[in-house]
Amino acid sequence: MNLLVFNCGSSSLNYKVFSGDSNSTAQITAKGKAHRVGVKGSDPSFIEHHLSNQTVKETQPLETHAQAAERVLQNLRDHQIPIDAVGHRFVHGGAYFKESALLTEDTLARLTECLPLAPIHNPNSMSVIYTCLEHQPGCPQYVTFDTAFHAALPPEAYTYAVPQSIRDTHTYRRFGFHGLSYHFVTQAAGPFLETPFSESKIIACHLGTGGSSAVALKNGVPLDTSMGFTPLPGLIMSTRTGDLDAQIPIQLLKEGKSPKEIETLLNKKSGLLGISQFSSDLRDILARVEQDPNAHLAFEMAVHRLVKYIGAYAVLLGGLDALIFTDDIGLWSWQLRESVCQGLTWCGIAIDPTANREAPYDRITPIEAPDSRARVLVIPTDEEWVIGQEGFALLQEGRHAYH
Amino acid sequence: MNLLVFNCGSSSLNYKVFSGDSNSTAQITAKGKAHRVGVKGSDPSFIEHHLSNQTVKETQPLETHAQAAERVLQNLRDHQIPIDAVGHRFVHGGAYFKESALLTEDTLARLTECLPLAPIHNPNSMSVIYTCLEHQPGCPQYVTFDTAFHAALPPEAYTYAVPQSIRDTHTYRRFGFHGLSYHFVTQAAGPFLETPFSESKIIACHLGTGGSSAVALKNGVPLDTSMGFTPLPGLIMSTRTGDLDAQIPIQLLKEGKSPKEIETLLNKKSGLLGISQFSSDLRDILARVEQDPNAHLAFEMAVHRLVKYIGAYAVLLGGLDALIFTDDIGLWSWQLRESVCQGLTWCGIAIDPTANREAPYDRITPIEAPDSRARVLVIPTDEEWVIGQEGFALLQEGRHAYH
Repeated sequence: MNLLVFNCGSSSLNYKVFSGDSNSTAQITAKGKAHRVGVKGSDPSFIEHHLSNQTVKETQPLETHAQAAERVLQNLRDHQIPIDAVGHRFVHGGAYFKESALLTEDTLARLTECLPLAPIHNPNSMSVIYTCLEHQPGCPQYVTFDTAFHAALPPEAYTYAVPQSIRDTHTYRRFGFHGLSYHFVTQAAGPFLETPFSESKIIACHLGTGGSSAVALKNGVPLDTSMGFTPLPGLIMSTRTGDLDAQIPIQLLKEGKSPKEIETLLNKKSGLLGISQFSSDLRDILARVEQDPNAHLAFEMAVHRLVKYIGAYAVLLGGLDALIFTDDIGLWSWQLRESVCQGLTWCGIAIDPTANREAPYDRITPIEAPDSRARVLVIPTDEEWVIGQEGFALLQEGRHAYH
Repeated sequence: MNLLVFNCGSSSLNYKVFSGDSNSTAQITAKGKAHRVGVKGSDPSFIEHHLSNQTVKETQPLETHAQAAERVLQNLRDHQIPIDAVGHRFVHGGAYFKESALLTEDTLARLTECLPLAPIHNPNSMSVIYTCLEHQPGCPQYVTFDTAFHAALPPEAYTYAVPQSIRDTHTYRRFGFHGLSYHFVTQAAGPFLETPFSESKIIACHLGTGGSSAVALKNGVPLDTSMGFTPLPGLIMSTRTGDLDAQIPIQLLKEGKSPKEIETLLNKKSGLLGISQFSSDLRDILARVEQDPNAHLAFEMAVHRLVKYIGAYAVLLGGLDALIFTDDIGLWSWQLRESVCQGLTWCGIAIDPTANREAPYDRITPIEAPDSRARVLVIPTDEEWVIGQEGFALLQEGRHAYH
């Protein structure tokens, strides 16, 4: 069977076609990515398609994720690649979805209720689901959730200390995000551990150009994670503030700002951008870290926050077998990894400076020093692989690949 | 000289008279506490005075802290104890006060600006300052700030990741609280350390029946603390939520709650009360922890949060010489100390269960096991002592006792 997997970002759309009968035999027969979807600016949007050993770049206006998905479906038809099933990434499954779900009318209704929970992600995925319903009628679809990975968090980690009436009405709890990525990288770390995965202590840091988070995994089960009800809290991100005194939004409101303005301020104008005052991109900040005090502060704050989270998680876990860095910043910023690991010396973490600087972006690389008490791994993530894996298990074997 | 020190809580007023010429020779010649100030209910307010080896309890309506202070001043006059200077605790000195200040017109104007920063504490202290201006005209007064202790926090710990324009206009920064208490207990720990205080690594937890926080102190200088711009964030407290996704207040607002309602919800109805649904008092919760799942969850959450903070700070410090528990809950809840220290095994913390259970409330007690890598100390705090110490240094020697 040919399994098409869509992975919507806020302004991108990744797709992959897995061909085969099971996870172990499946091959990627087509893949691609739409860039700058719905982004206004001088650079146009485009899609790259990799199939039949060819790479094709189509430059064309892509105002919505639905348009991009339509273009992908058309291109697959043009290349005589029939699609037997479609899988989708859905960032936020709310309290409804603790595991992947086949698309039914009931599923659709519940997904609709989850739309506001991740306003810059969920509606994109939903529009692509409808595109497939229209252009691939009768084709089975299923949805895989980032939040599902964290459904096993213990109550003391996911509960907010607010009255139960408030928690219940609005399902306010720590949901956690980047679950597909964490599923991939922690599984991928397995062969590098001396203990079985089911007895391991792992901390993974998904450090993206958009959102960043960390997770602690004990015996394969998440123990705590840094994002919360929304992707706002936790680490310092490109434009999100991360942890903040919850009284500050109330104070800003009293000073006359609207809820919408505050939301924009904390989600789009804060983080590295808010501190550095010139860029949300850690590369720009690192380029000026020596001469610009604001760039210096932005970097120091990102390191300080991450060291605190990793430190807290290492103590919660009562030890550490592996520390994982993944996603864009996790892969390319050897400086961030170096500074963070220097802050973790007391945890027994030591890296090989050369291995760290030279770690490639495209494969799993151990960067710890020989005397490190834990492995330190740089792992490129693959969310589509997880969605594909789940699809084969769900559609061919009627079970979940995980959870 | 006789130095009168006032320490206003939200519904209490402590006072002490230190008589002598310096910190080292001063004796306490009078002290007392007004209870239930401004509290409505069936139990009346009252003041206990301890002086001339006598304890007198006056039951009388005390609607304001000013009334209670007036009563204290009158009582001291009745006992022929002349007052040469008055010192006050001021919880929040904003960005103005990084050290204690003699009361001048300029100081008064700035204190007035700081009133809204700690709305349930600062106005009480201010009213007592005015009472003294009225009833002790010409008597020197000075003010000592809880926030001053944390003025030395490094920028990566005190800066919020919001745009600088927002930070500057409203002086949004992590101020930190419980500074007088931290000053006392960390100094008091000095003789128990193998290293000099100026080369030590200390974590102190001020766990009160109202607010709770933690601080990391490296070489005598604070490195990070859990409270923030306000006393809301950080640990789970009696009725305060501690850390919370900052998007949640915005969400509550969109759902139609007023800023005032949200503030009340997060500050007065959350924390242990919000989780347990029946009490904000850890004693009540511990009494039902076996049979009531909500009580169990409340205790587990308080422990989980505190272990995360202590763990993060131990890693930030790169080691630990002493872990200190203080204030009401810190002194009496051997269960909380036991559970928290069990969560810190990986940090090398080990306590003697019997010493922990039997630690008295009124003196410094080491409770660590012989094989613990750090001292674990239960220390009764004495904020008035710190205000007195600062007063002698400031008034007699024209210098600050600390900072």
